[in-house]
Amino acid sequence: MRVELLTVGDELLLGDTVNGNAAWLGRRLADHGVAVTRSTVVGDRLDVIVEAVTEALGRADAVITTGGLGPTGDDVTRDALAKAAGVALVRDPELERRLRERVAAAGRGLRPMALRMADVPEGAGLLADSAGGAPGLRVRLPGGTVYALPGVPAEMRTIMEEVVLPELADAARSRDGGPAVARRLLRTAGIWESELATALAPVEALDGVALAYLPDPAEVRVRLTAAPDRLDDVERRARELLGPDAVYGTDEETLDKVVHRLLAERSATVATAESLTGGLIGAELTRMPGSSATYAGGMVAYSTALKEKMLGVPADLLARHGAVHPDVAAAMAAGVRERLGATYGVAVTGVAGPDPQDGRPVGTVFVGVSGPEGSPVVVEPRLPVPGTGAVARGIIRRMTVVHALELLRRVLLDLPVRWAAPPGGGDAREDREV
Amino acid sequence: MRVELLTVGDELLLGDTVNGNAAWLGRRLADHGVAVTRSTVVGDRLDVIVEAVTEALGRADAVITTGGLGPTGDDVTRDALAKAAGVALVRDPELERRLRERVAAAGRGLRPMALRMADVPEGAGLLADSAGGAPGLRVRLPGGTVYALPGVPAEMRTIMEEVVLPELADAARSRDGGPAVARRLLRTAGIWESELATALAPVEALDGVALAYLPDPAEVRVRLTAAPDRLDDVERRARELLGPDAVYGTDEETLDKVVHRLLAERSATVATAESLTGGLIGAELTRMPGSSATYAGGMVAYSTALKEKMLGVPADLLARHGAVHPDVAAAMAAGVRERLGATYGVAVTGVAGPDPQDGRPVGTVFVGVSGPEGSPVVVEPRLPVPGTGAVARGIIRRMTVVHALELLRRVLLDLPVRWAAPPGGGDAREDREV
Repeated sequence: MRVELLTVGDELLLGDTVNGNAAWLGRRLADHGVAVTRSTVVGDRLDVIVEAVTEALGRADAVITTGGLGPTGDDVTRDALAKAAGVALVRDPELERRLRERVAAAGRGLRPMALRMADVPEGAGLLADSAGGAPGLRVRLPGGTVYALPGVPAEMRTIMEEVVLPELADAARSRDGGPAVARRLLRTAGIWESELATALAPVEALDGVALAYLPDPAEVRVRLTAAPDRLDDVERRARELLGPDAVYGTDEETLDKVVHRLLAERSATVATAESLTGGLIGAELTRMPGSSATYAGGMVAYSTALKEKMLGVPADLLARHGAVHPDVAAAMAAGVRERLGATYGVAVTGVAGPDPQDGRPVGTVFVGVSGPEGSPVVVEPRLPVPGTGAVARGIIRRMTVVHALELLRRVLLDLPVRWAAPPGGGDAREDREV
Repeated sequence: MRVELLTVGDELLLGDTVNGNAAWLGRRLADHGVAVTRSTVVGDRLDVIVEAVTEALGRADAVITTGGLGPTGDDVTRDALAKAAGVALVRDPELERRLRERVAAAGRGLRPMALRMADVPEGAGLLADSAGGAPGLRVRLPGGTVYALPGVPAEMRTIMEEVVLPELADAARSRDGGPAVARRLLRTAGIWESELATALAPVEALDGVALAYLPDPAEVRVRLTAAPDRLDDVERRARELLGPDAVYGTDEETLDKVVHRLLAERSATVATAESLTGGLIGAELTRMPGSSATYAGGMVAYSTALKEKMLGVPADLLARHGAVHPDVAAAMAAGVRERLGATYGVAVTGVAGPDPQDGRPVGTVFVGVSGPEGSPVVVEPRLPVPGTGAVARGIIRRMTVVHALELLRRVLLDLPVRWAAPPGGGDAREDREV
């Protein structure tokens, strides 16, 4: 079962919008055993869409299009599908009625142009979601089926989940007799891709097993691909080779979710004290619904003076060493833990750039975690500084968030830490590579 | 001058990675007067890449590929280009020398596989950046030129900026005699797309002018397209129709940059007090290098109790109305301003969902700004709640960030505000649509 994606919209070619729809569709289809074999973006031009759909059905069994179903003149996917099918566009009375109702409910008049949204290629089926949103279209062509979906992500996803994914998954099962391979992501933080690849070479050498390394800032996801009945064994072998603590989660189990789970299991809470990340760690720890059970709150002490005032970092420490120092990270972690009454405090201080600060180069970061027992743990993770300027700044901030959550995970699980920064600020980074 | 993009990588088809490279390339090429007419993603398969490159050169003058130039067995772009050109792959001695040097400097041994990175299609040119990173390839085929770039964004971007963009811009100028159209983005916050479209209808009706609406959560970017010598006039007309305060910036001038500029012009600083956004407003205000001049710091008071403890929100107010109330937003803004010693305080409280809180439905948000004069300004922006669950939660949080920065901008410029929330908490939202 081969499916191609066709995303329609000038804004994608011009780079005003990133093609998140294609990524989402690829992931959900793979989850259902359907392989996306090609993904194409074209502009809002009728002939180009007709050509692209026809070509795609020459290679694949089905095509999913997104975009071009709106009310304006440049929304021409409907017209293109009618042309590809060699049929006329006809007005669907039920769609027209719904459209008029929606517009009336919003207290507006219906622009004549908007009635285009009630036009469908003759013989097309409607892909309606249960919420009554804008519907998609199912058009049967000689080469296969086209599913035309709205470009608005929420509408597209609802129709996919409710209608198209079950239909394609059924077709894939009945045609291919179930998926030939299954995939699983192993998630790691703070480990180089090259270290992972070296450790996992024996798995990579196994027949019928494929590995792919998907690097993100300070994280690498390892995708295992194997026959469905072998996947658990492959995962077990990979975990043995990497060591018991390297994989923090699988598939959609992100680091923030893991940390919340570990805190909840211990009836514990965490508070954050941030400098260079400006609130990103707090934002990450509040992504998940229900996070208030384990996340108390945080302080963003962006200026050096506020580190003393908000978090009680000793003034003489700041005067002596500046704000970027392991003892400052430790004091921030202990300070926020105490002031917010949380079980754990996690803190970061460092240099996101583009300029050095307090004599420390861009990419210097100290992460501290303070808990109910012992002194704070502080690490100075080695960040591969990715070039210069605004992009580097964003990546350094993101890497810092990951290292903060990973250190908290390791402290919660009582695991060894890497890049421990000795109190007093000796430079622990003999392996630094900036 | 027509250019197509070809992105190579299974991880993109599987949705493990979003195609940010294609968006960046589209934007930068448009900036240089070069139109991307199609963008295709294929997997790591030699024959498919050969076919896609050949097809693309049947339609366009040049093709830019990204990905598939690495050292592993599934990196087959080099091989595909040699096959498409009908030439052999030959080892480049200079590339081999550099590769061995890099590996030696990192204290590792060279895996034989890695030497593949020194292979180039016979006759291909090297696209080297000034920093000595992994080079790209320029391969001339009968139908046009292929620029093959690494998939690592930082490497790809450097080669584009230094080598490929100047080359393609030159070619476009000498062929087309300069760009036929120019584009500009007008950025707005807190205004519906339908309101903008109604107001701008007279501009849309102008001959040779095209408008596109690019909606993001709580923001709409309006892209104007016109002949280069008319663009300033078109922008002026659009601003007249929208009113003087609707457009906060153009092109890359994001809302955080505008707010920092306005603060700096007034030698003022801002502090943030966040609840449902968990630190996202602070993170947004620290994206820009040098933001410490105008951003003091912030508090994330995620739990109701911390709103009293950290920000001095009166306990009886919280007890009477819960945490989601206009007076709480006002007290948070005033509290953080005073406690952090900033000129302005901006605060948000609300319900990101998925469950209602304190009797308020998901999507209820109050934004407050406290300044040196008068009482805090509080608004209750109308947020179109985008479905349910984790996606909706993320979008509500993002919309809240935008409304917070936009309210701060309006207060700084002494502009009227929309959706003012009266003290005491009467429901101002007769126009609510959730």
